[in-house]
Amino acid sequence: MKYLIALTLFFSLKATAQNHMVRLAKLEIDSAEIDSYKSFLREEIETSVKVEKGVLTLYAVFERENPTRVTILEIYADTAAYRAHIQTPHFLRYKNGTKKMVKSLELVEADPLIPDMKIK
Amino acid sequence: MKYLIALTLFFSLKATAQNHMVRLAKLEIDSAEIDSYKSFLREEIETSVKVEKGVLTLYAVFERENPTRVTILEIYADTAAYRAHIQTPHFLRYKNGTKKMVKSLELVEADPLIPDMKIK
Repeated sequence: MKYLIALTLFFSLKATAQNHMVRLAKLEIDSAEIDSYKSFLREEIETSVKVEKGVLTLYAVFERENPTRVTILEIYADTAAYRAHIQTPHFLRYKNGTKKMVKSLELVEADPLIPDMKIK
Repeated sequence: MKYLIALTLFFSLKATAQNHMVRLAKLEIDSAEIDSYKSFLREEIETSVKVEKGVLTLYAVFERENPTRVTILEIYADTAAYRAHIQTPHFLRYKNGTKKMVKSLELVEADPLIPDMKIK
């Protein structure tokens, strides 16, 4: 019985990780607006990971050689969590506030090699 | 005194996170070798995060529309941890084993917006 519970738990955790929605957002920001953009993005990310259980991470990096290029690794618990996220006031504040700062945006759906990978 | 300890701890944690070495590795894999490449990469990542304290994550994603394109978010505790990593037998096994499978490799040094960001 104990093994059955462990096995069920194992497969349900595995299934959960495999439902994750994972995406790379690649943006190019107007160089004159980079500091302002960063503060909008920081506020949006900090609020999202704090208040939304289904936003597992929004890991944003700026390229050192081309600091107007941003890549965000977005991981949501599932597509429902993502759909909820883009309706939140903090997401909409970011989206509307940065609209004129974003020169290009590419959204790339992706499959993680190891769905339950963490950051230590 | 208690506040001084808390303050010191706060700044030392902050300093640690800001020493992280963060990079995006962007690879294109030979489509005939993709399954073999994935198993080399999976083994290398699982071993690295397990046995190397300074490898904080190696989060690999394959683009859904172009599944031969891989992006790896690499986070090391610092540059010393990275230098140690590329000398390990498991890294060298991956590097040598996949040499002929990798059609292109771009390494992009990056600065995280929020250095202590995790994956829930």
